[in-house]
Amino acid sequence: MRQSQLFTKTTKTVPKDEVSLNAKLLIQAGFVDKLMAGVYIILPLGFRVFKKIENIIRQEMDLVGGQEMFMPSLHPKANWDKTGRWQNMDDLFKFKSYYSKIDVALGPTHEEVLSPTAKKYIASYKDLPFAAYHIQNKFRDEKRAKSGVLRGREFMMKDLYSFHADQKDLDKYYEQVKKAYFKIFNRCGIGKKTYLTYASGGTFSKYSHEFQTLTEAGEDIIYICDKCRAAVNKEIMADQKNSCPECGNKDLREAKAVEVGNIFKLGTKFSKPFGLTYKDKTGKDQLVIMGCYGIGLQRLMGTIVEIMSDKNGIIWPEAVAPFKVHLISLRQNKKADKIYKDLEKAGVEVLYDDREDVSPGAKFADADLIGCPYRLVVSEKTLAEDSVEVKLRDSDKIDLVKLGDIVDKIFKL
Amino acid sequence: MRQSQLFTKTTKTVPKDEVSLNAKLLIQAGFVDKLMAGVYIILPLGFRVFKKIENIIRQEMDLVGGQEMFMPSLHPKANWDKTGRWQNMDDLFKFKSYYSKIDVALGPTHEEVLSPTAKKYIASYKDLPFAAYHIQNKFRDEKRAKSGVLRGREFMMKDLYSFHADQKDLDKYYEQVKKAYFKIFNRCGIGKKTYLTYASGGTFSKYSHEFQTLTEAGEDIIYICDKCRAAVNKEIMADQKNSCPECGNKDLREAKAVEVGNIFKLGTKFSKPFGLTYKDKTGKDQLVIMGCYGIGLQRLMGTIVEIMSDKNGIIWPEAVAPFKVHLISLRQNKKADKIYKDLEKAGVEVLYDDREDVSPGAKFADADLIGCPYRLVVSEKTLAEDSVEVKLRDSDKIDLVKLGDIVDKIFKL
Repeated sequence: MRQSQLFTKTTKTVPKDEVSLNAKLLIQAGFVDKLMAGVYIILPLGFRVFKKIENIIRQEMDLVGGQEMFMPSLHPKANWDKTGRWQNMDDLFKFKSYYSKIDVALGPTHEEVLSPTAKKYIASYKDLPFAAYHIQNKFRDEKRAKSGVLRGREFMMKDLYSFHADQKDLDKYYEQVKKAYFKIFNRCGIGKKTYLTYASGGTFSKYSHEFQTLTEAGEDIIYICDKCRAAVNKEIMADQKNSCPECGNKDLREAKAVEVGNIFKLGTKFSKPFGLTYKDKTGKDQLVIMGCYGIGLQRLMGTIVEIMSDKNGIIWPEAVAPFKVHLISLRQNKKADKIYKDLEKAGVEVLYDDREDVSPGAKFADADLIGCPYRLVVSEKTLAEDSVEVKLRDSDKIDLVKLGDIVDKIFKL
Repeated sequence: MRQSQLFTKTTKTVPKDEVSLNAKLLIQAGFVDKLMAGVYIILPLGFRVFKKIENIIRQEMDLVGGQEMFMPSLHPKANWDKTGRWQNMDDLFKFKSYYSKIDVALGPTHEEVLSPTAKKYIASYKDLPFAAYHIQNKFRDEKRAKSGVLRGREFMMKDLYSFHADQKDLDKYYEQVKKAYFKIFNRCGIGKKTYLTYASGGTFSKYSHEFQTLTEAGEDIIYICDKCRAAVNKEIMADQKNSCPECGNKDLREAKAVEVGNIFKLGTKFSKPFGLTYKDKTGKDQLVIMGCYGIGLQRLMGTIVEIMSDKNGIIWPEAVAPFKVHLISLRQNKKADKIYKDLEKAGVEVLYDDREDVSPGAKFADADLIGCPYRLVVSEKTLAEDSVEVKLRDSDKIDLVKLGDIVDKIFKL
């Protein structure tokens, strides 16, 4: 894409109430804009990152057999009354539809929608197991929407729900999803800093699990067992007698972290209120056993920014970068145009800084702020050597690459 | 996909309050489920149709230079006060955020969000023109949510907004989008029944334009000029002196239709309240001229169903069909498995009815109801001739195709 066409620009202006590093960088670089506390617009650059994260998640969910669908945000009160969460969930947005006269909630999660829907299609044990997911906007009336895009009042979430005939089948599937989650975080470039933590399982399960990524911006405290690469959430440390749930190790390391995903064995918590049952082989009615599995997209994007940036801007991992290459023309658009076209033709995603009234210094600063993995510079100096300057975002080393070799070189990087 | 794995099933049960053909068929075939009046769940089969429609729209929007982004649903009252629509728009969902204490609206459209955002990036005439769009969930507190998925309280919409230095530039772009819209409706298979109609332009423009598709399910009345292939909305017929706005023809034909898209020259209607200006070449401040362009996805899907079905079910146009092929095994899963794998390997989208406890009659009924373009049947009878039976959904003709030729044949269909 030609940068001269991109309608957003980098900016030095950040809203006064914005204290988090992730939102500051994302706003300055033109990935998001703040509409109100906890509510962000995803601008075209941010949208490209979003789609890449979304596609990584979608691929991994499809691989564990998730069937993609799309559920609404408007939920009738009746469904939330059944589970008691109309009263008990603090951060539920609730209001009345003026014309239909009914009370509605804005969905923060979808057990109250999918459980009764699944009931329509589940009759016998032969209809189980299955899993369904959607990637959809969620709403939570957060007490304090701070931490930038890490904790929003509105945010995109992938939520997968699984339905099983028995606990053993859920346990097996749960382990598959656990692996899929690690693959997602690895592919998004935060795998090394992400730990599986033991969290409270509520009343139905001994544990739930969270995926916590180490960052000073995190709102959670976890205790890491370096032997097992597992960790424990602070909330259950006392119950755990301050030891690792996997090996009993008591030498745990405290760290701040942000929850980037969570998986939960729901058991019959939602099948019971909705009467979600199936006939087993003997013809007896049994409650369906459920699991749920969430990942917040803005939070994942914000976490990547928190842990991968320097004083000059963001350093995107290639898999989720808005563009692979940032091509900068220093008053050499004729030559740069051809390189741009050659790269695009070869299928390389390029942000091409073809702007004519912007100084070299400002172009370099923009490239660092936006943070594409590879910076190519075409200038009088590089052309004198029939070359293009190539620099990685996270390195100071600069290479000169011959014009004829540039497409090949990019594929080898 | 193996039909035995699909968690939904076809059903004979339709909610009592559901009178529209589109919702009845979509619910019976397992494409959507009704959560409450005007609010539908998009089930896995429906989601596949949805994604195809979405991708057709996205391709055409990208071709007219639209920059994709994603705007929130929660909008602060302040923005809607500026345009007067907080008070004036009847079907705006409005409520209070308990914790942030502020009044919010659920976005039915996004001029109130994008205009102030664009203001941050527009300084000079050099920053114009541009266009940005998103495909996002919208909310309208409809007085009566009838007509199935054609008129929902919650629905996915593509809304494109364009920003120009002058009227001439808007006029030029508007014609480009008009052409893109015809391409979209053609590609979705409803082009022949879709007319560009002249509609009220409000206070800022002589006309707006709607794309109206002929169907008895439509809530609108239009008057068609068969000479121009143009039409007039009933609301402005008196102003038009009952004649075609293009050629003056008075011999117009009345028809019922549904609005599948609309395009509107907004002029300065939104740039004025938000002070959205640019500096022209002489350094003088000028108001930005805007256009907006919408397509509702559920409505488009529902319209396709209204005009392309028969007494047995839906007849999807290939471009938006959930699967190209519905492969039915009549107790011949071993052979059918191989055909399924061969087709999938060749990149053909196949719904494979591998269910073992379902009768042939029920399988045929399901295939007609779901409505994939090509039905393939593998039975003892066809295998006796080393063949597969091939039938088009909208034809009664049945061909026998040799097993070895089936992949080639499907590509030629």
